[in-house]
Amino acid sequence: MALNVVLAQINLKVGDLAGNVVRISEAAARARDELGGDLAVFPELTLTGYPPEDLLLRSDFLDRCEAALAQLAERVTGIDLVLGYPKRTAGGLYNTAGVLRDGEIIAEYHKALLPNYSVFDEKRYFQPGGEPCVVEMGGTKVGITICEDIWFREPALRAAEAGASLLLNLNASPFHAGKSPEREELLKKRAEESGLDIVYVNLVGGQDELVFDGGSFVMRRDGKVVQRAPFFAESLNRLAFTADGPRPGEVVPCAGEEESIYRALVVGVRDYVRKNGFEGAVLGLSGGIDSALTLAVAVDALGAEQVEALLMPSRYTAHMSNEDAVVQARNLGVRHRVIPIEPAFNTFLDMLSDEFAGSQRDVTEENIQARCRGILLMAVSNKKGKILLTTGNKSEMSVGYATLYGDMAGGYAPLKDVPKLMVYRLAEYVNRAREIIPRRVIERPPTAELAPNQRDSDSLPPYEVLDEILARYVELDQGVAEIIAAGFDEAEVRRVVRLVDRNEYKRRQAPPGVKITRRAFGRDRRYPLTNGFSS
Amino acid sequence: MALNVVLAQINLKVGDLAGNVVRISEAAARARDELGGDLAVFPELTLTGYPPEDLLLRSDFLDRCEAALAQLAERVTGIDLVLGYPKRTAGGLYNTAGVLRDGEIIAEYHKALLPNYSVFDEKRYFQPGGEPCVVEMGGTKVGITICEDIWFREPALRAAEAGASLLLNLNASPFHAGKSPEREELLKKRAEESGLDIVYVNLVGGQDELVFDGGSFVMRRDGKVVQRAPFFAESLNRLAFTADGPRPGEVVPCAGEEESIYRALVVGVRDYVRKNGFEGAVLGLSGGIDSALTLAVAVDALGAEQVEALLMPSRYTAHMSNEDAVVQARNLGVRHRVIPIEPAFNTFLDMLSDEFAGSQRDVTEENIQARCRGILLMAVSNKKGKILLTTGNKSEMSVGYATLYGDMAGGYAPLKDVPKLMVYRLAEYVNRAREIIPRRVIERPPTAELAPNQRDSDSLPPYEVLDEILARYVELDQGVAEIIAAGFDEAEVRRVVRLVDRNEYKRRQAPPGVKITRRAFGRDRRYPLTNGFSS
Repeated sequence: MALNVVLAQINLKVGDLAGNVVRISEAAARARDELGGDLAVFPELTLTGYPPEDLLLRSDFLDRCEAALAQLAERVTGIDLVLGYPKRTAGGLYNTAGVLRDGEIIAEYHKALLPNYSVFDEKRYFQPGGEPCVVEMGGTKVGITICEDIWFREPALRAAEAGASLLLNLNASPFHAGKSPEREELLKKRAEESGLDIVYVNLVGGQDELVFDGGSFVMRRDGKVVQRAPFFAESLNRLAFTADGPRPGEVVPCAGEEESIYRALVVGVRDYVRKNGFEGAVLGLSGGIDSALTLAVAVDALGAEQVEALLMPSRYTAHMSNEDAVVQARNLGVRHRVIPIEPAFNTFLDMLSDEFAGSQRDVTEENIQARCRGILLMAVSNKKGKILLTTGNKSEMSVGYATLYGDMAGGYAPLKDVPKLMVYRLAEYVNRAREIIPRRVIERPPTAELAPNQRDSDSLPPYEVLDEILARYVELDQGVAEIIAAGFDEAEVRRVVRLVDRNEYKRRQAPPGVKITRRAFGRDRRYPLTNGFSS
Repeated sequence: MALNVVLAQINLKVGDLAGNVVRISEAAARARDELGGDLAVFPELTLTGYPPEDLLLRSDFLDRCEAALAQLAERVTGIDLVLGYPKRTAGGLYNTAGVLRDGEIIAEYHKALLPNYSVFDEKRYFQPGGEPCVVEMGGTKVGITICEDIWFREPALRAAEAGASLLLNLNASPFHAGKSPEREELLKKRAEESGLDIVYVNLVGGQDELVFDGGSFVMRRDGKVVQRAPFFAESLNRLAFTADGPRPGEVVPCAGEEESIYRALVVGVRDYVRKNGFEGAVLGLSGGIDSALTLAVAVDALGAEQVEALLMPSRYTAHMSNEDAVVQARNLGVRHRVIPIEPAFNTFLDMLSDEFAGSQRDVTEENIQARCRGILLMAVSNKKGKILLTTGNKSEMSVGYATLYGDMAGGYAPLKDVPKLMVYRLAEYVNRAREIIPRRVIERPPTAELAPNQRDSDSLPPYEVLDEILARYVELDQGVAEIIAAGFDEAEVRRVVRLVDRNEYKRRQAPPGVKITRRAFGRDRRYPLTNGFSS
């Protein structure tokens, strides 16, 4: 007889305990009734969503977690649940997975290895556990581990020693490009070392800067993936676990890089907007490629009728910029309005003429233009309850090629972690079936259009060079000497690195955006603002 | 014969290794030549400044730390130094204090207890040490500990067991109101438990949101403070340690609450502006108490000639607001200019008239006014290289009573962690010798002046109530039920708490400011933006 294990890859909302109880019990009922599940396995910290951050420091929050767990115990019968929650004990707080059977928690496992790097702060909240937890379910001995535990040898080995033949691993593993193959590569080691079949259940959905990509899977002890759930979507997958091990099921293929990243952006925007209750989104459409891609993401996330675009030309805007912006808005069926910024820009120049008498034009006047646009966009956002999407990319964010309170204004920045060259690749991906982003937008040289005949290449290295230097410096923590040794021009490397360092203050005031690389700005990279180090 | 120990309470700059080598060697030379020191004791992580944050993840940074330490070893002779630096080993990175004698590190202690709460992330970077380190210096056995180590029993006891009679404790302990007596209370326990005389050396100066307040001291084993260095200033203090224990020296008295907080604000602003190389500061002076206090702080931090004020009245600005602003600018000798915002405000209303046709006036129009001021201030900031100081207080920041990209625009927010009632107390402190802030500014009812006859009390509870609810919710992590039980109106508590929760997105984009309470916003309080929890 088989043990039917349901991988419950669901989308939860951080802090929304009542809502999460509903989400969990509905999934449990479907797992039981539609899939004949004996057991449903949920993501890490199911009850709270991930990461609950400093809510975990509040005793009223932990009280309510206990109440929510008790509610769940009352509601769900006829199926075992393995789910995650914070557990208060005399010895401190644990990141726990409990087995809920017939209204009782019959076993609990406390996460042993607590990640405290990258975006993770688990040692801020939790004590490490470590005792293995193995539970008999329908004749099978099932071990439990949580996320980080599976990245190291010990926890799986201890579960095997304690008699497990099947290992469950509850995750909240955030997406970055290439993460899914990395996970499976690693799990292969664990499966082979421990001789255990493994059920890996991941969270799905967006939470602030993180997108959890799902892609839960079943790995046989020989390292073969015999079942894989979809990426970026909720799903309940049934595994029949027999005396011969896991019975093979559907293996959803992994997507290519552009598709994965694009879907991450869409989910990140969708969940930030919906979970925060906005009435849709507004953005400034310039005729450039960044806002073009942002608009495409927004429409895929929210639907065309929920999105609107503002075109705000100035004296420096090329005619084709406006034309192209209008074409794209029409291609996507998005409401758009044109409001030239000249009247406001002129008024400010006038108001400042005494104060600035005798001084030269400089970046100040460029910033005023960007900030006039910021005011218009925020006015529409405020009046209509639509979130303003910021359109800047990671390359710009890195070197500070953006105006604080101007084009950086907004509630969410979909492309914040997308390097410019990837923006191009994603634009081609958007156009894969039909031309949504006009060809000219993709092919013209990038420009901020804040001064006459301006081009990005006037003040920045070509993006082929810039993006590579940035990836080495920001994502790989390479120093100047190491980057130069890899074949880059010394002066260019020093200049880029200096710009990254000097612009931390801008990034600190930037809106959140989806992490898609190995290291994003935000919680993932904690730099001092006041920083005297020069590499 | 006495061992002469110099408490080297100096101001360092994070990441500035070359500069810190100079600062350390100059202090060492003075300690040796002017004070006859046998030994100089420096703050925690002297070489890097504190906290170096993710610089510690870079191997080029750690390479340069090693080189800087070697440089220091060459430069300093004739005196022992006990100083802090990050130490790379095969087993990981340690937060280390080393004894430098005649060009050699003769002993090293690795910090045992790593704070990973509040603003601290030390487990992100460091491995815990633990072996006691006791070194003989001029016949005295001297034990070494670092900061957090002294907050718990073990490390001091282990040093005593290892034979120490004098214990050094190297600190980077950030200020909050009431912290200094807390430290001494705690050290008293340690002294009594361990039977050790203790030398507590603290860092001084500002680093982003933290101000280190100095106040280094010597505590006798009976718990008596027999010497105390000044607060908020660099200082070298000599302790003569004899066979009878520490010889008493000058005990600088602790300041009152207002004075301590005010000095913290001044140091925070001064060091942020200077260490980041700005040419002074600019701010918007409204005739209200927040900008009045901010101006006073700025002048004390930078000098009147480095500060300028912009008065930006609108149709809603009372005549007396302008009068009072001018009086204060004159009292302080600060350059000021008046630029009414009406032309820009009207232009934007005009530009948006089609888009907003048929809609009612609401907070959108208030925000436009605040953002017109933001543009003017940032234009002056950009043109002149002066940092824009934001004038909002903690009560406003908490409930979101401020406009993003408007009055929240700026590079540094001196009052960010100062509750409104404390703003009043600090204003009285500023006026302690003569009237700097006009009486009327302190006494008139607070108003944002963004709509006709507007008062803060139209939309917020009285500050006496608001500040108390906020302190309980934000600083003490009390839940709604607990606050109500303390005697507050349920509807009011729920409303305030909801406002705090909903405005996390504004705070996430706010400039940094000086932490002066037990819990500030920023690194100190890490809340999800998307947060479904309602207390």
